[in-house]
Parts: sequence; C-alpha cells; structure tokens
Amino acid sequence: MLESKQMTRAVLAWLGLGSNLGDREANLRFACERLARTPGIAVEAVSTFRETAPVGGPPQGAFLNGAVRIATTLSPPALLAVQKAIEREAGRRADGPHHGPRELDIDLLLYGDATIDTRELVVPHPRLRERSFALDPLRELGVDPGTIPRRESPRVIRDPAEFAAHCDALRRGGCRLGLVPTMGALHEGHASLMRRARADCDRVAATIFVNPLQFAPHEDLARYPRPFAADLALCAREGVALVFAPSVEAMYGKDFISRIAVGREAVGMEGAVRPDHFSGVATVVTILWSLARPDFGYFGQKDAQQLAVLRRVHQDLRLCGAIVGCPIVREADGLAMSSRNVYLQPEDRRAAVVIVAALREARARFLAGERDAERLVAAARERLAGEPRCRAVDYVELRAPDDLAPLPKGPIGPARLLIAARFGDPATRLLDNARVDVDEVLAP
Amino acid sequence: MLESKQMTRAVLAWLGLGSNLGDREANLRFACERLARTPGIAVEAVSTFRETAPVGGPPQGAFLNGAVRIATTLSPPALLAVQKAIEREAGRRADGPHHGPRELDIDLLLYGDATIDTRELVVPHPRLRERSFALDPLRELGVDPGTIPRRESPRVIRDPAEFAAHCDALRRGGCRLGLVPTMGALHEGHASLMRRARADCDRVAATIFVNPLQFAPHEDLARYPRPFAADLALCAREGVALVFAPSVEAMYGKDFISRIAVGREAVGMEGAVRPDHFSGVATVVTILWSLARPDFGYFGQKDAQQLAVLRRVHQDLRLCGAIVGCPIVREADGLAMSSRNVYLQPEDRRAAVVIVAALREARARFLAGERDAERLVAAARERLAGEPRCRAVDYVELRAPDDLAPLPKGPIGPARLLIAARFGDPATRLLDNARVDVDEVLAP
Repeated sequence: MLESKQMTRAVLAWLGLGSNLGDREANLRFACERLARTPGIAVEAVSTFRETAPVGGPPQGAFLNGAVRIATTLSPPALLAVQKAIEREAGRRADGPHHGPRELDIDLLLYGDATIDTRELVVPHPRLRERSFALDPLRELGVDPGTIPRRESPRVIRDPAEFAAHCDALRRGGCRLGLVPTMGALHEGHASLMRRARADCDRVAATIFVNPLQFAPHEDLARYPRPFAADLALCAREGVALVFAPSVEAMYGKDFISRIAVGREAVGMEGAVRPDHFSGVATVVTILWSLARPDFGYFGQKDAQQLAVLRRVHQDLRLCGAIVGCPIVREADGLAMSSRNVYLQPEDRRAAVVIVAALREARARFLAGERDAERLVAAARERLAGEPRCRAVDYVELRAPDDLAPLPKGPIGPARLLIAARFGDPATRLLDNARVDVDEVLAP
Repeated sequence: MLESKQMTRAVLAWLGLGSNLGDREANLRFACERLARTPGIAVEAVSTFRETAPVGGPPQGAFLNGAVRIATTLSPPALLAVQKAIEREAGRRADGPHHGPRELDIDLLLYGDATIDTRELVVPHPRLRERSFALDPLRELGVDPGTIPRRESPRVIRDPAEFAAHCDALRRGGCRLGLVPTMGALHEGHASLMRRARADCDRVAATIFVNPLQFAPHEDLARYPRPFAADLALCAREGVALVFAPSVEAMYGKDFISRIAVGREAVGMEGAVRPDHFSGVATVVTILWSLARPDFGYFGQKDAQQLAVLRRVHQDLRLCGAIVGCPIVREADGLAMSSRNVYLQPEDRRAAVVIVAALREARARFLAGERDAERLVAAARERLAGEPRCRAVDYVELRAPDDLAPLPKGPIGPARLLIAARFGDPATRLLDNARVDVDEVLAP
C-alpha cells in the first residue's frame, strides 16, 4: 500500500550463461535453477551447453556456454541485480580479475526488442553479432541474428529535441556525459578533447554546427570548411556516441531573438575585433548545454578568451556540470592547430610559425628575469614584425593566466601572452597563446 | 562479460506484509518463502502476524499484517520489482481496485538508513510513524521507531548547488518536477499555480527569491514584502516538496555579469516603464531553470508580458520542459491578486477595482460588436479616468492574445487588453489583463 502498484507485462528475454571455473556444467545448471525460482522470472527454454575458447582477458581455460529464454516481469536493472546475486551464489568473487576465470557469468543478451544504453547495461551488446559463443545458443533458442537491432556509431542526430531526449536517456541510465561542441572541420585538437572526454565520461556527444551568431557579416561563415564525412569518421575513431549536427533553421527558429549578454571577459582582444562574437558563442553554448546537460564540456585553451567568457557564463547562469579547458595541440612545427589553417597557402602556412616564435621569445625573456609587461610584449611584437608574410598583428596582450583579467601595474607575475595575427590574402586570422611563466612545450 | 560486475554489499531492509483476501496467513507465509528463495535476498527474521483494521480504501475485511527483516544485495527498485512479482504470484490482480482488498501487499518500509524519494518508492513512507499495522511488527523485529528518519515538508534549501542536486535526484527517480518561481509574499494566485503543478507533476518545487536584477534603483526592492514564515506555511499547505529560498549573494556571485538579452516581446508596456526589468526576470528564470530543470514551470497570466517574454526565452534557449501559463486569480471584488496589493490603503484598494471595470467595459463593447481598437482602448481609459484615486494610467493596450504582438491595422479579432495603473501614495502600480473576445469570468 506504500508504493505504486502498476503491474507489468512479461517480456521475453535471452540470457547468456558462461563458466570456466569449478564444475562448469553444474554452475550453468545452478544458474538455470535459480532463475527458475526467482519471482517474476519463468524459464521457457535452455540451450545445449557447448565449449568455447575465451575471448579477451588473461590466459584462462575454455568456457562452457549456453543461453536461456525467459519470460519476465522484472525490468532490465532488476534482472541485472538478480543475475549478479546468482553469480555471487555460484561462488564468483566481487574482486576477481576483470575478464578473468569465473564460476558463472550471466549476461542479458536481449530484452524483448528493447535497445538499452545505460552505464551498467548495453543491450544488445555492441559486439553480440561477432560472438559465436553467445550467438550459437541464441540461434538454438530461435533467435534470428539478422533481427538483432544494429547500433549506429556514432549516432548522427539533426533534431534538437531528439538530441536532448538521447542525452537525457543516457543520463537517466547513470552515464556521465561529456560534450565536445565544435564547428566541425575537426583536427587533432578536437580529437584530443574527445579523448579527454572519453577518459572522464561514460558517453561522449560531439556537436558540429557552424554557428552564424558568432560570425560578423564580413566574416568567413559561407566559406568556413564543412567536411562532414571526414568529421564523422574522426568522431567514430574517437569513440563518440552521439554527433549532433543540426541545421541553422533547426537551431534558430524564425522569431529567434534571445542572446546571452556577456561581460568584461569579452572586452578587448577578440571582443574588440569581433564585437558580437562572444555573445554569439555564449548563446549557442548555452543552448547546447540546455539540450545536452553534460557532466563535462570540453574546450580548447587555444581560444583562451572564449574559454574565459564561457567559464563566466557557465558560472553565472549555473549551467550544469563543469567546463574543462584542454591544452593546445600543435602541428609538427609548433603552429597551433586550427580549422582555419587550411585557408593558408603553403608559404603563408610556413611563415605563420612566427607566432610560436614570438610566444617563445616572450617566455624566454620572462624566464631570464624580465618582468616588465611592455618590454615582453614589445619583444613578441618584434619577432612578428620580422616576418614579412605576417600582414597584420591584431593584438599582443599579457593577461592573467585564466580569467584573462588585465594585469595590475608593476612587475608581472604569472601571465598568459595572447596573440592574434593575419596571414595570406584574403587574410586568415590566427590565434595563439601561452603562459610566459611556465615552461610549457610549444612544439609537440 | 557484457555488464559491469560491480558487486554490492548486503543491506538490511524491512518489508511490511499484508493480506485481507483468500487464506491470509497462507499468503503471508507464501511471501516469506518466495522472498527466501529469491537470489540476492536472505530472510533473517519474520514477525508474528496480527490482525488490523484496514486504513483507507473501500469498505473491506480486516488485514493480517506482519514484517520481515532481510539482508539483500538488490537495489530498492530491483527489490520493488521482486515484491510486485510475488504479489502477482499470490494472485493479486493488476487491475484490482486501488487500496481495495488484496491477497498480498509487500511494502518496502526501511532500506538500511536510506531515504528514498522516487516516483515509485518513498522510503521511509511519510506516514510510517502513524501506522501501527507496520510499526508494531517493525518494533518486534528490533526497529526503534524513534530512529526512523523524519522528513521535513517542504524541505527548505538555501544553497543553489544543493537545490540542483535535490531536483536532480527527484528526476533520476522518475519524478516529473513542477517549478513555481515566486518572489514570495504568496497569495491565492501562487497557491493556484502550486495546485496546478501538483496535478501535473510528481513533485513541486517553489522558489522564493526577491530578484534584485528585475528592480530598477527607484523601485520597491527594499520594501517588497517578505513574510517568509507565512509563505512556507502556504507551501506546506499546497504540498510543495522543496522550497528554494537563496540569498542574493548565493544566487549572484561577486563577479556576476551575464544577462539574458530579450527581444521584441519585452518592447513597450512594462518594457517601456521598466527598461531592464524583463532581462532581469529572464536571467533569474534561466538560472532557476538551470538549477531545477523542471518538466513544467508555472507562471500567472496576470503578468502577461512576463509570460510572453519567458515563453520566447524558453523556446530560443531550448530550456527544458514547458512553460504553463495559469489563469488570473481574483479577490472577491474582482481585483487581480498581487503581492503588491498590500501596499494599498483601504480606500485606494477599493478604488483599484476600476481596472476590472475597465476590462469589462472593453469586453462588453467588443461583444456588442465594436472592432475598432482605438475606441475599445478609449472606452477602457474613460472608465479609469472616472476614478479620482487612479493617480496615473501607464498604458492601456490591445495586443495579440498570447505573444502580445501589436495588432494589425483594421478591425480586430481575438485580442487581450492590458492595463497598468497607479494608485495610492507612494504610488503602487497594478497590472491586469483580459481577453476582450472571450467571456472569461472577471470576478470569482
């Protein structure tokens, strides 16, 4: 009388059984018997048991494998809890080696025609079709392997509501979700964000959207590179689960007008050259955050001012999760990776490395004892001026390392040097930055 | 090998058993036996069974009640699934009358010292302390009722992160969450929002925060009423689960600067009189949305322009869930309820009802065939002008009913008349609005 009494219909489910420790056949029989005695489970059919070679894990003995078909009113997580309890009863230790020898393995292979993607449980298993030790007993129990749902990876989603629903389902399934917002034209810098996200999170969603709000009318919105197939291949390689790639119309309806107004972090530097840029970035990122509600969102340190602006908006608007800034990834010669590097003709591309030389110059002088901000900036500017293919220097600024606040007067302490300069015709703006007080590697 | 193999420690849990249909004692014994045979459950002790009178539900026979203490590795939802399966095995029908006679009831009374608040399961049950049919067997099994965690209702939360965590836990537990953002000084209008939220949702969170961002320097921020104890009592009466009442410092850190920039919905009317008001409202609502992530948020139609602005921001920024606009609640004489009505001296309070008369006047003329917007507005203005205690009329405008877009030239169709007028000294601004084309009741 204390809980909801909604009753559930029985669902057909298939469990895989395996044992390679102890009396293997007795272990499998024990599993069947315990399942049959569990409330909410009726065992309908048991396959023959067959011997199979182990797949993965340390060197170990052959498995005895089989499968059972059950009708159950238990939900998949409840079923999983029962499976684990039976494994323990069969003597399996909680702290046994991962994928090592075990008395009993019970795996939920199929649950009706449901696809389940939670932290604890993925059904059908992504590699089920490749595993004869599970497939053969399933066939014997009447499952046609061709009917097992396939899983697209990454899953490409165009519709914002569908993206939100998918992210929500992952979170409800206990997954930590990492978000990697991009404008596509993915390179090793983006890949490094995805790898970090994979290390931190259970699932990674990448977004590919060239956001018109952050381009001024004269900027390169139309010619911005959009190599979608290559981008998707990179996402697949990096184990991204979801790629959200909406159209402009899907993201911004016809009466769209709201903006995130940003503050002092957006003043100066890029903000001076590109007046509405950061408001456009903050707006799209806020929207992506609303849709995905990530546990972590990943941004490159290369766009240092963007990172500072987004950290402020994230904190002010209490967006969920955390923002993670990731190190700059560089080409072999040290140039910071950027989707816009492809705009450069070969000679300009070679010349552009002067930006890195300028950063190194300022750092070398700082490490040699120079603490005067103006002289450090002048040294960097001098290096840039020595490269005739550098068509313009938009700014060279020393700022506080993380929030990029202007430095107080007097000898400087920890600081970041930020450079924007133009190369080629039409001119391509390149950004770079580095701490002057830390001996970070400036080439790979 | 397909799932995570994290093993769980056994937890002590207490289940209540009840039966008032069929062989009651056999049903309770059946439950104990089935529990004992369930993987992941060890039955440690069974209380005596005793007869109790039914509590709630239709007229029905007496219950036989008892309790069992188990050690279990099953999670509470898995345990619940097993309980339901055993109830079904005992013959209980899925479609039996709610709280009617049943062969078997198994209720999770205590699960270790956990407090659980999900859609399906609340542990300990909020009324467990009042239920001797559950308490007496628990006592027999060694539970001291004084140690059962008490539940504060509503729970008052001051810290934004704590509020977010609570809302998140409710959502993860499958609860639909309703949000009622308020500035406190709650009245029957707010109560009507809470009741609507209760009807739509599993849990309701109300926020009480006098938001400085939406007050101009000359406005009534300091004197805005803050009767917190009365507000809390109203929330308790309306079954609100969470009250979020942060300080200004907790909501807005010292470097807080971000704002939601709003669009054409904020132009004119209140936007003309209070230039930054709607940006301030949109900003705090976006923050509350980030924290609570409600399924539904409730706002009164009285602040029609606020509702239109928030609908736009909600849609543009893809805030989760939906915004629900709720009808205006009125005093006995028809005056729209407002927290600011308390500012009025009795004679001004009586005079203020002229706003309702003006709305009625315009509607009567529309329903009599008048379709000229200027003449409808003039008729309403004339009524207001007839009341000497009306110190100023800020605006009288006819707009589109929902998004409040200006009406096209020519004979009008469906429309909403919006009025802002001032009464008393210092002047109190009162807002009201009504459809002119629909015969809504303008007094309760």
